Amino acid sequence: MQLTIIKIGGNIIDDTNKLESFLRSFAAIDGYKILVHGGGKIASDIGTKLGISPNYIDGRRITDEPTLRLVTMVYGGLINKNIVASLQTYGCNAIGLTGADGNTIAAVKRPVTTIDYGFAGDVTSDGVNSDLIGKLLNIGLTPVFAPLTYSHTSDILNTNADTIAQELAKAMAASMTVKLIYCFEKKGVLRNGDDDNSVIPVITNDMFLSLKNQGIISGGMIPKLQNAFEAISKGVDQVVIGHAEELTELMTANAGTLIR
Amino acid sequence: MQLTIIKIGGNIIDDTNKLESFLRSFAAIDGYKILVHGGGKIASDIGTKLGISPNYIDGRRITDEPTLRLVTMVYGGLINKNIVASLQTYGCNAIGLTGADGNTIAAVKRPVTTIDYGFAGDVTSDGVNSDLIGKLLNIGLTPVFAPLTYSHTSDILNTNADTIAQELAKAMAASMTVKLIYCFEKKGVLRNGDDDNSVIPVITNDMFLSLKNQGIISGGMIPKLQNAFEAISKGVDQVVIGHAEELTELMTANAGTLIR
Repeated sequence: MQLTIIKIGGNIIDDTNKLESFLRSFAAIDGYKILVHGGGKIASDIGTKLGISPNYIDGRRITDEPTLRLVTMVYGGLINKNIVASLQTYGCNAIGLTGADGNTIAAVKRPVTTIDYGFAGDVTSDGVNSDLIGKLLNIGLTPVFAPLTYSHTSDILNTNADTIAQELAKAMAASMTVKLIYCFEKKGVLRNGDDDNSVIPVITNDMFLSLKNQGIISGGMIPKLQNAFEAISKGVDQVVIGHAEELTELMTANAGTLIR
Repeated sequence: MQLTIIKIGGNIIDDTNKLESFLRSFAAIDGYKILVHGGGKIASDIGTKLGISPNYIDGRRITDEPTLRLVTMVYGGLINKNIVASLQTYGCNAIGLTGADGNTIAAVKRPVTTIDYGFAGDVTSDGVNSDLIGKLLNIGLTPVFAPLTYSHTSDILNTNADTIAQELAKAMAASMTVKLIYCFEKKGVLRNGDDDNSVIPVITNDMFLSLKNQGIISGGMIPKLQNAFEAISKGVDQVVIGHAEELTELMTANAGTLIR
């Protein structure tokens, strides 16, 4: 059974026209599929009005209690339900979920070391309830995950959407052929960061190590690719990185960077 | 197959201790069950901070666009997900839903007559997707509905929680034995509105008409009971009206008013 898991980030969520266009393409994908969405500026905008200012320690965002309530509302309610409603309009039987819903993604509150991240959740090793997610897919539903997980002792937790997509992909790979697509603001992994047309079409792990040593792949792209290879090593069939506006082409490997 | 559908209102949602106590009792109920929750003061409180003031025409609340966004966040996100997370803690595999999720409850935007109610939804005659709800119950899930429905042309809509509970009960009654419990701020239908111990234990339709004629049942209790008898006439097995704090007793007909 083929399963496509797609992650979209805040840049597309903040642009209504681009989001609707993406959701139309997503609805048209055949077979089992899951959407994972990130946050977006709207949470900060609403937070500012509510007097909840982002809390950073050493450049890392901390999920304090007011922030947790904010993201539960905005990610789990406003963004998630509007995506679900749009997908329904496009004929896709979407169901919006956090990790708490159906106990789908269990996490632990990140242990306090030098930094207390607050209500940040790390998905536990057997945290993804792949059995239930398989049943939801099987009755014709398309899960849409907000970047929220759940701990049996600390309730709802804030978890990075990239991580959720990766954990879902690894867990579902045990029973399905999984394609994981990360949509971001670039057309793929670029040879030249300033040239959007310099997309590297295919990267293997050997190529990645070589390109990294040459300094062609650097910065935030390194952990992204490390996560992609981690997913591949855990049984995910394909990982594709590319632009949300090119979803149809990403599905047929005619755009973006294919990692395998 | 026995299904219990319980509606709770804002009065209990606003009181954390009472809500948790109720949820613990709810989690302990055997068999298939569905929870429907209302709003609560928290939506108005957050609305006020966001500069969204309640909009009334002729004493009726209007769901304008800012209000729709507010209730989507607060009902569909904050309240719904916190209830789901609590139920998970108590061992109940809850899944939070709006009518858009799984296309579970379709509605139409209320037609404009003398009043434009804005984004208010009336559940369509075949709007409840009882087939899918049955499947969710069957895979071990307990649906928790926010008071939000969905129209294929107008996206998310605001719908009264009592109405949602009633429509769910009527639709599910075609395939299951349904008990519908309305929790409110009184212990049941009272003979004397000032005496909380004057609960009428059982009411039939003939008794209702007689009590109404005598003026013993009056005001807001009349439409509540009319809705209850409407549910009974559409195949719902039992309707019980009582206090959320007495849920365990309401389940065994040792408290509240039984309508049949």
